Amino acid sequence: MLFLARMDVTFPESLSAEQVAKFQVLEKEYSGNLQRSGKMAGIWRVVGEYANHSLFDVESNDELHEILSGFPMYPYMKIKVTALAKHPNSIR
Amino acid sequence: MLFLARMDVTFPESLSAEQVAKFQVLEKEYSGNLQRSGKMAGIWRVVGEYANHSLFDVESNDELHEILSGFPMYPYMKIKVTALAKHPNSIR
Amino acid sequence: MLFLARMDVTFPESLSAEQVAKFQVLEKEYSGNLQRSGKMAGIWRVVGEYANHSLFDVESNDELHEILSGFPMYPYMKIKVTALAKHPNSIR
Amino acid sequence: MLFLARMDVTFPESLSAEQVAKFQVLEKEYSGNLQRSGKMAGIWRVVGEYANHSLFDVESNDELHEILSGFPMYPYMKIKVTALAKHPNSIR
Amino acid sequence: MLFLARMDVTFPESLSAEQVAKFQVLEKEYSGNLQRSGKMAGIWRVVGEYANHSLFDVESNDELHEILSGFPMYPYMKIKVTALAKHPNSIR
Amino acid sequence: MLFLARMDVTFPESLSAEQVAKFQVLEKEYSGNLQRSGKMAGIWRVVGEYANHSLFDVESNDELHEILSGFPMYPYMKIKVTALAKHPNSIR
Amino acid sequence: MLFLARMDVTFPESLSAEQVAKFQVLEKEYSGNLQRSGKMAGIWRVVGEYANHSLFDVESNDELHEILSGFPMYPYMKIKVTALAKHPNSIR
Amino acid sequence: MLFLARMDVTFPESLSAEQVAKFQVLEKEYSGNLQRSGKMAGIWRVVGEYANHSLFDVESNDELHEILSGFPMYPYMKIKVTALAKHPNSIR
Amino acid sequence: MLFLARMDVTFPESLSAEQVAKFQVLEKEYSGNLQRSGKMAGIWRVVGEYANHSLFDVESNDELHEILSGFPMYPYMKIKVTALAKHPNSIR
Amino acid sequence: MLFLARMDVTFPESLSAEQVAKFQVLEKEYSGNLQRSGKMAGIWRVVGEYANHSLFDVESNDELHEILSGFPMYPYMKIKVTALAKHPNSIR
Repeated sequence: MLFLARMDVTFPESLSAEQVAKFQVLEKEYSGNLQRSGKMAGIWRVVGEYANHSLFDVESNDELHEILSGFPMYPYMKIKVTALAKHPNSIR
Repeated sequence: MLFLARMDVTFPESLSAEQVAKFQVLEKEYSGNLQRSGKMAGIWRVVGEYANHSLFDVESNDELHEILSGFPMYPYMKIKVTALAKHPNSIR
Repeated sequence: MLFLARMDVTFPESLSAEQVAKFQVLEKEYSGNLQRSGKMAGIWRVVGEYANHSLFDVESNDELHEILSGFPMYPYMKIKVTALAKHPNSIR
Repeated sequence: MLFLARMDVTFPESLSAEQVAKFQVLEKEYSGNLQRSGKMAGIWRVVGEYANHSLFDVESNDELHEILSGFPMYPYMKIKVTALAKHPNSIR
Repeated sequence: MLFLARMDVTFPESLSAEQVAKFQVLEKEYSGNLQRSGKMAGIWRVVGEYANHSLFDVESNDELHEILSGFPMYPYMKIKVTALAKHPNSIR
Repeated sequence: MLFLARMDVTFPESLSAEQVAKFQVLEKEYSGNLQRSGKMAGIWRVVGEYANHSLFDVESNDELHEILSGFPMYPYMKIKVTALAKHPNSIR
Repeated sequence: MLFLARMDVTFPESLSAEQVAKFQVLEKEYSGNLQRSGKMAGIWRVVGEYANHSLFDVESNDELHEILSGFPMYPYMKIKVTALAKHPNSIR
Repeated sequence: MLFLARMDVTFPESLSAEQVAKFQVLEKEYSGNLQRSGKMAGIWRVVGEYANHSLFDVESNDELHEILSGFPMYPYMKIKVTALAKHPNSIR
Repeated sequence: MLFLARMDVTFPESLSAEQVAKFQVLEKEYSGNLQRSGKMAGIWRVVGEYANHSLFDVESNDELHEILSGFPMYPYMKIKVTALAKHPNSIR
Repeated sequence: MLFLARMDVTFPESLSAEQVAKFQVLEKEYSGNLQRSGKMAGIWRVVGEYANHSLFDVESNDELHEILSGFPMYPYMKIKVTALAKHPNSIR
C-alpha cells in the first residue's frame, strides 16, 4: 500500500552545528534501513529546499505513522501524507 | 533527471460520456508508451480524486514539457511540476 | 484501517431538479449499503454546507478509492482524504 | 450535538523533554476521562503529524469550549472546530 | 447557543433578473421570520460584497443546518459557520 | 456605524503566567468599559480558539482604530476588521 | 473617512463586446461623478490586471456600500474593502 | 526598468480550435515585435502549464500596462506583475 | 510613476520599549521627509493593524526600492508592492 | 536548461550585524562567480523585499540543487524553483 509523503525540515536556532550533523547521521542510517527493508520505496530531494518527497510501501496507516514518527528528525519535520492507489494506466 | 508531477483533471460539462471515454483510451495508450520507454517512471492515483502523482525521468525541461503537453487530456489538466534531485540518504 | 474524508458536492447548472433528486436517491442507497457493511463507519453533514465528513474503515487504499469513486455523485464531488492512525490516548 | 475538531500541537523550544512527557501523561488522563464520559466520541492520530481529529458529543458550544480549553496542552494547540449535523443518509 | 455565519451569494448567469428579484422577495420574508422568532439575532451586509454576516441563536447544530439550508437562495450561497461561546469579558 | 472584528491572541513565551493574568484583568476592565459605553456591541469567544469576534458601533474609522489599538493585549493580537452596512432584510 | 477598495472585474462570456463597451461608458460616467463629488479620492489601474485600487472618502459604511453597489459593473466585480485611519506619520 | 510577469492563459470553452489557433498566430507576432523592440527581454514557458514568465524592460508602469493589455490573448490571461530593481550582487 | 505599498510591521521580542520608541521617532522623520519631497503621496493606517497602505510617486523601480529599504523599520517590515497605472476613468 | 528561482531571506535575531555583513560579502562573491561562469543568467531584487528572482542555466536538477544549497545564506533562505522550457514565441 503506497503513500507519498512530503517532509520539510526546519531546525530550531538552538541546535548547534554538531547536533545537526549528528541528526543527519542518524537520519541516514534510519532512512537506509527503511529502504533496505522495502518500506521506503524511494526518496528524492526537492531542488532548492530542505525537503523531500518519499514513497512508502506499508501494511497499514498505523505502520506508516510508526515509521514517520520514528525518524530522528521527526520533531523538526512538517509532513504531509497522500494516500495513493493503483492507477488504471499503470503498466506495473 | 527526475520530476514529480501532480495532475488534476477537470472535464468541461460540454464533453459527452463518449468523448470522455475516448480520451481515457488515448490517455492509457499514451501513458503506457511513456512507461515502456522509461520516461514515466511511475504513476499513482490520488485516493478519492481525479488526480495522479507521476514520476518522470527525462533529459531536459524541454523534453518534459513536450511530454506533458502531449497528453491527450492536457487541455483539461492542471499540472504542477516539482524538480527533484538525488537525496543524500538514497541508497539507490 | 481508518480514513477521514471530507466531500464537497457541487452540481453543474445543467442538471435538472429531477436528475439531482435521482442522484440523491442513488446516493442514499449506496451510502446505506456502505454503512451496513461497516466500510463507512460514520457520515455527518457540515452545518451550512453541501458537504460531509465521513469515516471509512477499509482494508487498503485501493479499496477506499474504489468505494469513493463508486459514489453516484462522485463526478460532482471534491474529496480530500486524511489517513488516520490509532491515537495513543484512545481508550477503544 | 456533534463537533469535529482538528488539533495541531506545537511545543515551544523552551519546554524540556520532562515537561513534554508530563504534559503527555496529563493529556492521556484528561482525554481518557472525556472518552469514558462519552463527551469525546473518538480520537484519531493524523498520520505523520502531531495532530488529531476528534469527535465531540456535547450539550452546547459553551460546554465544548470549556472541554477544549481544559486540555492540559491547550496553550500549545491550534484547534479548528467544525459543527456537524445529522446526515440524511446516515443509518444510525 | 450562538453561531456566526458568513454567507456569500453567487447567482448563476442562467437566472433572469426576474428570478433573482423573486428570490430576493422570498429571502426577505424568510429572513424576517427568522428575526422575529429570535432565531436570527442579527444580519449585516459586508460593505462592497454580496455577502452578509449573520448571528444565529439556536438550540442545536441540527436546527441551525435546517435553518440555513432552508434559505431560498441556499443553492447559490457559500456559507461558513463559526461556533461561538460566551466570552469571559462579556457583560451581558 | 458597525464593524466586525476578529481578534486572535498569541502571547510570546517570554511572558510569565503572572503577566498574562495581569493582562487578562486589564483586558476585562477595558472591554467592560467599552461595552458599557455602547462602543462594543458584543463579544463572543470562538469555540476552541484564543480568539473572539466582536461587534463595534463607532463614529469613524479613526475612533475604531483608537479603540482597538488601546486594548491592553493589542501588541499580542492579530485583528481583522470588516466594515458592515445595514442589510436590506434586517428588521431592526 | 477613508477606505481603500480593490475591485476585480470579470465579465461572463455571455456578454457581447457591445454590452461590455456600454458598461464601460456607464462606468466612466459614474466614476467621473464620484470623483467630481469628492467621494472617490483616487482610482488607479493595477498594472496587467482588469482591476483597480480606489480611495473613497465617505460619511459612513452605509454610504460606501451604496456607492459601491451602484457601480454599473457591480454584478461583475469582486470588491475587497479596507478601512483606513489617519496615520500618525502623515503630514497632511 | 524591469518587471517580471507571470501570465496564465485559460481559454473559455466557447472558443473553437480555429479561434484559438488564430489567437496563437497573433500572439506570436505581437510577442515577436515586443522582443525585437527590446521591450520584452525574455519569455519562457512554465513546464507543464499553459503559462509563461516574461521579463519586460519599459519606461514606466503605464507603458507596461499598455503592452500587457495589448496582448491578443489578454482577455484570457491572468497576469501577476512583480517590480524588479537592480540586485547589489548582479555583475551586469 | 505610482506604486501602492502595504507594509506590515512586526517587532521582535528582543527590542525594548525604548528601542521601539526610538524607531518610531526615526520613522516619523523619514516618512515626513518623503512626504514633503512628494515621493510619498499618502500614508494611511490599516484599522486595527500595525500596518499601512502608502502611495509612492517615483522615477523608477530602483528609486522605490532605495526608498523602501531606507525606512528605519525596514528590517521589521513585510512589504508588498503593487505597480499602478493611470486608470482610464480617472479625471485627474 | 533554465530555471527561475525566487529566494526569500530571513535572518534569525541571533545573528549580529557583523555576521550579517560577513554573509553578504560571501554571498556577493559566490553569486559573482556563478554569474561569471554563466550558471546564473540573471539576478534581480524584488522591490521592497529582501528577496530576489534569479535565472539559472544548468545541466541538471542535481547541479541546480548543488548550486542553490551552496549559497552562504542558504540556511536562511526559502527558495521556490520553477522549471522553464523554451517558449514557442521566443525569438532567441
